[in-house]
Amino acid sequence: MNDLHLLSPKGFRAGAVKAGIKASGKLDVALLASDAPATAAAMFTTNKVFAAPVKIGREHIRGGTLRAIVVNAGNANACTGRQGEKDAITMCRVAAAKLDCDPKEILPSSTGIIGHLLPMKKIEAGIAGAAIDLGDSIEHAMRFTDAIMTTDTRRKLAVERFKIGRETITIAGVCKGAGMIGPRLRSSGGPPQATMLAYLTTDATLSAPALRKLFQPAVHRSFNAVTIDDHTSTNDTAVILASGQANANINTISTAKKFLDALTKVCQSLAYQIAADGEGATKVVRVEVVNAKTQRDADQIAREIANSPLVKCAMHGNDPNWGRIVSAAGKTSGKFDPDRSTLTLQGTAVYRKGRPLPFDSERVSASLKASEVVAKLDCGLGKASSTVWTCDLSKDYVTINADYHT
Amino acid sequence: MNDLHLLSPKGFRAGAVKAGIKASGKLDVALLASDAPATAAAMFTTNKVFAAPVKIGREHIRGGTLRAIVVNAGNANACTGRQGEKDAITMCRVAAAKLDCDPKEILPSSTGIIGHLLPMKKIEAGIAGAAIDLGDSIEHAMRFTDAIMTTDTRRKLAVERFKIGRETITIAGVCKGAGMIGPRLRSSGGPPQATMLAYLTTDATLSAPALRKLFQPAVHRSFNAVTIDDHTSTNDTAVILASGQANANINTISTAKKFLDALTKVCQSLAYQIAADGEGATKVVRVEVVNAKTQRDADQIAREIANSPLVKCAMHGNDPNWGRIVSAAGKTSGKFDPDRSTLTLQGTAVYRKGRPLPFDSERVSASLKASEVVAKLDCGLGKASSTVWTCDLSKDYVTINADYHT
Repeated sequence: MNDLHLLSPKGFRAGAVKAGIKASGKLDVALLASDAPATAAAMFTTNKVFAAPVKIGREHIRGGTLRAIVVNAGNANACTGRQGEKDAITMCRVAAAKLDCDPKEILPSSTGIIGHLLPMKKIEAGIAGAAIDLGDSIEHAMRFTDAIMTTDTRRKLAVERFKIGRETITIAGVCKGAGMIGPRLRSSGGPPQATMLAYLTTDATLSAPALRKLFQPAVHRSFNAVTIDDHTSTNDTAVILASGQANANINTISTAKKFLDALTKVCQSLAYQIAADGEGATKVVRVEVVNAKTQRDADQIAREIANSPLVKCAMHGNDPNWGRIVSAAGKTSGKFDPDRSTLTLQGTAVYRKGRPLPFDSERVSASLKASEVVAKLDCGLGKASSTVWTCDLSKDYVTINADYHT
Repeated sequence: MNDLHLLSPKGFRAGAVKAGIKASGKLDVALLASDAPATAAAMFTTNKVFAAPVKIGREHIRGGTLRAIVVNAGNANACTGRQGEKDAITMCRVAAAKLDCDPKEILPSSTGIIGHLLPMKKIEAGIAGAAIDLGDSIEHAMRFTDAIMTTDTRRKLAVERFKIGRETITIAGVCKGAGMIGPRLRSSGGPPQATMLAYLTTDATLSAPALRKLFQPAVHRSFNAVTIDDHTSTNDTAVILASGQANANINTISTAKKFLDALTKVCQSLAYQIAADGEGATKVVRVEVVNAKTQRDADQIAREIANSPLVKCAMHGNDPNWGRIVSAAGKTSGKFDPDRSTLTLQGTAVYRKGRPLPFDSERVSASLKASEVVAKLDCGLGKASSTVWTCDLSKDYVTINADYHT
């Protein structure tokens, strides 16, 4: 989508500054603002250990309208008690003063080290600086994207466009997250180093309930279907703002379907980029479970395979180890019958109905060297399917997570 | 316990031979025989993908009496279909002919590569050889222990003795298992490389129902509480044989309690040795959850912490990363309130009621260099507790499991 970016949907501006929160001295405080009150929906971590901005964010999203998202990286404001909550509210208050709105129209977000109070002088100065910086250029969009990164090695962004009548609607999104990734986001609802944060913009016109209703399935089939280490973070957050500036209303079944399709594509692209940039990852592993008995079984089996360290190591070593995959499926509580299952690795059937199939293991191993590997398990029991994205498990994952010290 | 071993309980003999199943050429077919019919109890994997010997073993244990266990390493006889079942039965038939008993009094067991039919000529010759080798010396016990090892780097054995009146009762056990370890054994009921196998002997006298009833809680608090990679194998099996040769009857509440205590100690020692010899492990991590609301919550929280790759990497790096532990607890479906919890690492409280405590991180990090590390989480919600043993996650785990090819 070439030059499209987070601020391509009409009605948004962003700003970012180096406030000195990240030890690296990089961009770390940012604002994403809507020119006018925007319809908004958000989903947050289901971890019982959740950060102060998640608590405040849950309250502020209730109105269904937001003016801006204020975010910092380098400090998660998690496990920071009552003071942490006050600090998250202060972030909203400072941003609201700059944008001339109600603090409850601001959603706060934080990522980084946990268990430390935010350095509020730096944060407040940073928010003021980000407000001055606000603009709608591609540079502003990229600076916002950079400001939310922690252990990420690259920017993650996605944009989709579609038409309703003559009007073009744009949906854009950025996200971050490289470790402590196993989001299970819910509409309402610790201590991580990395966290999944996703911010989306669109210029479509929707009611808040409609936006919420469409955001949920898109998130479920994307962010909730990516896992690096199955670790639901304290700060996981996904938010979408709809400015309504495109003069195109999503208020019929057919427009809602178009919107959902585009939104799901944006979210899935971002989720895929998270898996590809997983800590230590050398490849994306796409686990497809088809013909499971129930949706719950399909989701559970796909997630179990994607989280198995034995499967992830085998994928790292380009080993067509069908046994680890089939037995990972068999250990879930879901219905699974090895005698009815077929496993395909990169298009080659390696296991069928309880028995391995003869296959050229050197050829299949070579096919596993791709940057995206597909393991497809047909359960032969029903019609439910589920796709989960993960990455391989490398020595670099251990290095990143064993050598990092709190 | 010095020179005590698997054959210290009266009435048992063992034999082992090099039958050419293991590529290494080491001991790989073995028999553990009781001189007379022994009361027996067994628990098997709960994986829906289970090996042929597990299927046959479940049938043969129903009678509550066994004469012998016949076991091979190097080939798991899993995902081998109908022929695999026939082969497991043949193993029993050949052993029974040598021991002059009913094939249904033999429990078959296999571990090793999956998806390959057993080389039955070698297996049959091996069983015949093992029968000739039968003896009750310490050397025989050690040879049996060696024969069941796969990726294990050392023997795992434990023995306990106690008295009932003047009679001494001995309970002994050996086991194997270094990877694909996350047993969830049940009394009745793939493809692994490693598997948890445990064989126990005792000379106490018990009825089969009593033995079963005492074996279950001992296994639950030991083998079912150890995890290397949370991967329930296709072949996981634990069996106990009671010869009755000590002339001491376990038929009162007080004798049953004594027996259960000693049996649990043997099983826990073996489980601990599995964690210590986990693939790539440099230390044992003992996760203790106390004062949880329910037993299910306690078990779930302890297992979630023990399985978290982020926690395991932190333990490998001697990082007192309380955040990963507390947030792992928070991501379970069990009841957990960070504001009521206290986390202690090696005796130092590092987190209390939603907030980190000030602690000397260099000193705590140094204390994490021990060969056994204890992470204790007090949930402050009830009275249930659970202990799970695991190991750290090192680069060697990745090497072992990525470079190994099927």
